[in-house]
Amino acid sequence: MEKFPITDKTKITRLPKRGVYDKETVYSILDEALYCTVAYSKDNQPYQIPTGFCRIDDKLYIHGSVGSHYMRELQTEKLPVCISVTLIDGLVLARSAFHHSVNYRSVVIFSKPENVTEKEELYNVLEVFTNKMCPGRWDDVRKPNDGEWKATLVLSFEINEASAKVREGAPKDDEEDYDLNIWAGVQPLTLERKSVIPDPALKAGIATPGYLFR
Amino acid sequence: MEKFPITDKTKITRLPKRGVYDKETVYSILDEALYCTVAYSKDNQPYQIPTGFCRIDDKLYIHGSVGSHYMRELQTEKLPVCISVTLIDGLVLARSAFHHSVNYRSVVIFSKPENVTEKEELYNVLEVFTNKMCPGRWDDVRKPNDGEWKATLVLSFEINEASAKVREGAPKDDEEDYDLNIWAGVQPLTLERKSVIPDPALKAGIATPGYLFR
Repeated sequence: MEKFPITDKTKITRLPKRGVYDKETVYSILDEALYCTVAYSKDNQPYQIPTGFCRIDDKLYIHGSVGSHYMRELQTEKLPVCISVTLIDGLVLARSAFHHSVNYRSVVIFSKPENVTEKEELYNVLEVFTNKMCPGRWDDVRKPNDGEWKATLVLSFEINEASAKVREGAPKDDEEDYDLNIWAGVQPLTLERKSVIPDPALKAGIATPGYLFR
Repeated sequence: MEKFPITDKTKITRLPKRGVYDKETVYSILDEALYCTVAYSKDNQPYQIPTGFCRIDDKLYIHGSVGSHYMRELQTEKLPVCISVTLIDGLVLARSAFHHSVNYRSVVIFSKPENVTEKEELYNVLEVFTNKMCPGRWDDVRKPNDGEWKATLVLSFEINEASAKVREGAPKDDEEDYDLNIWAGVQPLTLERKSVIPDPALKAGIATPGYLFR
């Protein structure tokens, strides 16, 4: 299994047993998450932006308006970024307050932005991004026109310094606490897609597409 | 309605109509979110940590192990942080690829860490934090002992430089696209608490607490 090298920045020092460096795990978390947060720094003042993203091979892509202040800053100054993604899978309810925890899968990436200008790559990013948010959607929609392309800024980040951290399973209590009369277990959490709400301005006679029933 | 002052750092320049500065909105987002990401910077290299948190009045609290490298660094060096929280409420499916969007509520806070050492405040933080993750849980659990208190580091962040950004409602398409034969609408997303999974080591005869049926 291919692994990311462990660097000073990605070495997990707290609960290192939860650290995961294989690409398959890192990429599966990235592909499931609907947004990431991009952190960067100016004069040691940190900033953060939550934003949608997609992954294609060994790159993570974000997009935004050419009018976006932070996108332009990232693009122009090639600032180093830290990108994180977190999925919460469950609440871990231990017998002791101290051992309460959360089942989660998170990824942290260190990288730098590159401007995507090649038309084919740009087009592919928007298709993958759209279908990630809503599988099957791209084929249906009105594709970007020239003006829209000019208004869109796409940045890529090479994924070569990355790590995941994963906690799963039951609570772990101190040995002497297992005899307490306290309920313990996990409450799973899932992000669910609910029944769609048609646009009030929807043209008459347009049926809900099959890919939205899930 | 009480509002946060708009500063250079919290001024929303992109889609400013989505910017919200009233405390009530900011706090309701913070109180619903199960985790935040804390960004800080060393020598202009940004780092990010996803972590649980709670809010009490005008402070946001995180906790961790005294053995946590980043918690100690924040505590010792009083590094400026940027904290963000994001809730995803729905996928906004427009007729054009370009106008696809997401309904979301996010908060960004700029602050600095303070070490919480006062026993009553510490205790209150853990109670509020536990009941935030799982309402009703605190009364049931085995409370922290002296060794556990010594192993726990709690940091507070004053919330006085903060903003929210909110998108809600139906897609907005270009006027000429409303006549296209393309379905448009919103697919709501919700984070759901599912049926609990008892710890395989659960002592016989302990019923699931009522607050876990929801």
